[in-house]
Amino acid sequence: MKKLLVLQSDFGYVDGAVAAMIGVALGVDDELKVFDLSHDITPFNIYEASYRLFQTVEYWPEGTVFVSIIDPGVGSERKSVVALTSGGHYIVTPDNGTLSHLATHVGIVAMREINEVEHRRKNTEASYTFHGRDVYAFTGAKLASGQIKFEDVGEALDLNCLVKLELPNNEIKENTVAGSIEILDIRFGSLWSSIPLINFQRLDPKHGEVFNIKIAEKGAIKVDMDIKYGRSFADVNIGEPVLYVNSLYRLALALNQGDFSKTFKIETGLDWTLSVSRKN
Amino acid sequence: MKKLLVLQSDFGYVDGAVAAMIGVALGVDDELKVFDLSHDITPFNIYEASYRLFQTVEYWPEGTVFVSIIDPGVGSERKSVVALTSGGHYIVTPDNGTLSHLATHVGIVAMREINEVEHRRKNTEASYTFHGRDVYAFTGAKLASGQIKFEDVGEALDLNCLVKLELPNNEIKENTVAGSIEILDIRFGSLWSSIPLINFQRLDPKHGEVFNIKIAEKGAIKVDMDIKYGRSFADVNIGEPVLYVNSLYRLALALNQGDFSKTFKIETGLDWTLSVSRKN
Amino acid sequence: MKKLLVLQSDFGYVDGAVAAMIGVALGVDDELKVFDLSHDITPFNIYEASYRLFQTVEYWPEGTVFVSIIDPGVGSERKSVVALTSGGHYIVTPDNGTLSHLATHVGIVAMREINEVEHRRKNTEASYTFHGRDVYAFTGAKLASGQIKFEDVGEALDLNCLVKLELPNNEIKENTVAGSIEILDIRFGSLWSSIPLINFQRLDPKHGEVFNIKIAEKGAIKVDMDIKYGRSFADVNIGEPVLYVNSLYRLALALNQGDFSKTFKIETGLDWTLSVSRKN
Repeated sequence: MKKLLVLQSDFGYVDGAVAAMIGVALGVDDELKVFDLSHDITPFNIYEASYRLFQTVEYWPEGTVFVSIIDPGVGSERKSVVALTSGGHYIVTPDNGTLSHLATHVGIVAMREINEVEHRRKNTEASYTFHGRDVYAFTGAKLASGQIKFEDVGEALDLNCLVKLELPNNEIKENTVAGSIEILDIRFGSLWSSIPLINFQRLDPKHGEVFNIKIAEKGAIKVDMDIKYGRSFADVNIGEPVLYVNSLYRLALALNQGDFSKTFKIETGLDWTLSVSRKN
Repeated sequence: MKKLLVLQSDFGYVDGAVAAMIGVALGVDDELKVFDLSHDITPFNIYEASYRLFQTVEYWPEGTVFVSIIDPGVGSERKSVVALTSGGHYIVTPDNGTLSHLATHVGIVAMREINEVEHRRKNTEASYTFHGRDVYAFTGAKLASGQIKFEDVGEALDLNCLVKLELPNNEIKENTVAGSIEILDIRFGSLWSSIPLINFQRLDPKHGEVFNIKIAEKGAIKVDMDIKYGRSFADVNIGEPVLYVNSLYRLALALNQGDFSKTFKIETGLDWTLSVSRKN
Repeated sequence: MKKLLVLQSDFGYVDGAVAAMIGVALGVDDELKVFDLSHDITPFNIYEASYRLFQTVEYWPEGTVFVSIIDPGVGSERKSVVALTSGGHYIVTPDNGTLSHLATHVGIVAMREINEVEHRRKNTEASYTFHGRDVYAFTGAKLASGQIKFEDVGEALDLNCLVKLELPNNEIKENTVAGSIEILDIRFGSLWSSIPLINFQRLDPKHGEVFNIKIAEKGAIKVDMDIKYGRSFADVNIGEPVLYVNSLYRLALALNQGDFSKTFKIETGLDWTLSVSRKN
């Protein structure tokens, strides 16, 4: 067995919370190989958690177990689940929307509710605020180590009950493709849209061609400019904008060695839309 | 052997300091499994280092070796030691107060001074500022790998000489329990007090009951409010305060999806006290 | 085989980029031991990337493979290479200056251009912006796992073509040694100069002796003061400056438990020079 366990949370690496989870996992099986996706998910931001899983899960070997704990509803009635993706990856998470992108873009083929009577660390019943340590890391470690199988997690759930956040709506018109600014490539301030390359290809774009782009917030235009479609940042001069296809095959906007988001004060979410049009 | 080595420091992960330590450890034994507790301890903050060890050590398998380097006195006469806890964990650290919480709440059963003639990397004698790399990571790696035993570290030290910081004083009165705001759950701004659940249980609290809480700085009241005692954040509306038992079984205060510390400008330390009283 | 793979980038650990690279590496060989040098290199800062490799590579076991992706020119004509150091470490990187310090201070003995036809992940040819995942991590993993040898990477390159940044010029005069402020010990604000201990030893310094130091920006003096030469921070009172030899055997300046860089507004780079003179 590969015994790969990958952790994601909004806890930061600034205190002992992540280390407590890793310790618990290694207490289950000290041969586990534990990795971090990110612990700097914006606190309580389930949308971001969902996106970051989508961004990474497929690059990991089949059978890898992901534990994701962005859990503002800890202690509420949200279900604790393990989902199995079409690629054979397991996601241990509260079912609070964290599975939205994987369900939509990758595929969830089965989901089970964690039986907390069996899969909770002993003597933690008086602690209601750290399911990450007491239930999720513990259950994920048992699954990754092979001590339990997916079937042993708990009752199968109806996939129709999976909690899904609203995701962007992508449109194709004659000379225009549109979608939302879903998320930032944070460190570089590049805008990653929801518009897939296959939609954009309907416009038969050529590298070097200039397109008109419009960014709007709730319909109010914030940016309207002509931008070169490049393969990469280096196709434009330093400080210039470029329209490109990002590493997830979606349209994106960057300033070469600059920060598009800060420079033009663009944020992310369903309210922020991007349209890309062929120029006449 | 499990060969688990866990590192804590105030170096950040922003330069090469941590990676140099890990490289040194793997040079001792490349089968070591090296993990991070946190490297974002506030620079020079020994109290925080002590607390974060207390928060995590017990969740790790017996025999795990922790190396903690918050060492403002590097190059001074503070001793370099290895401590053995009652739970069978080893802590490699300067003896500068870093062991305070473990000594008080968990128990240190033996301590030895590192013999730097034997357990210092060769050819580093002209470097006086990076004991973390040259002595602590190196010694921790030898211990975790089984190349040396605890007895080989150096001379046994009298546990009465262990350097202890002053820790909070917890009080129980007829209808009130009190203690200090020891530390923050940083990313969420929740206040973690020193008041143990067993003290609070003397008030026979019920979930859903409202308690009066007072937070003072050096005796001056900063917050005086009635707060619901919940199991978790989700027991109150978003933005509302909740009194709860944290994952270390101590009383804590949070705003559901908010930041209690920033909202009410509350800091941490012995000067910041919390009292929780049954309402008449 | 040791199978050690160490990653450096300017991606941060704030999204899924690093985790995607680790997943790709483990997809090559799930027995790889993957570590982080730092992912908080200042975006696009090749000089910093070069320095951090110099700061850490030598502390790792022979045969360790480093993957460094600070790649503002991704998609341009910069070459993708693997360099072999005199110490037997491999560096997978764009050849954009990242190898400058290793080439100058450690020695590069061979370099090969990555054959991207053979060593690029399948089906990523339409992605031009994430060579870190699709080429560098993938090639580094194959090399670290032993699936390919250095000779299999691609064509050997002439070492004279290696791209080198300008590095500081160190001077020795009768009573003075001089160089540049190369970089910060970031978390503590200490200034790390380029002046090697062996140069300083020409002044026959004694610990406790006071030296005159001058810091200039483009020749304009910013700081002119007398500072004690100590072994470590603890040799001066809290808040006082100290001249010391850092962990890379170069002269450095710190404020004991303070921040020299912020206090005196000193930055880094070739324009920022330090001279240290024996007092008459």
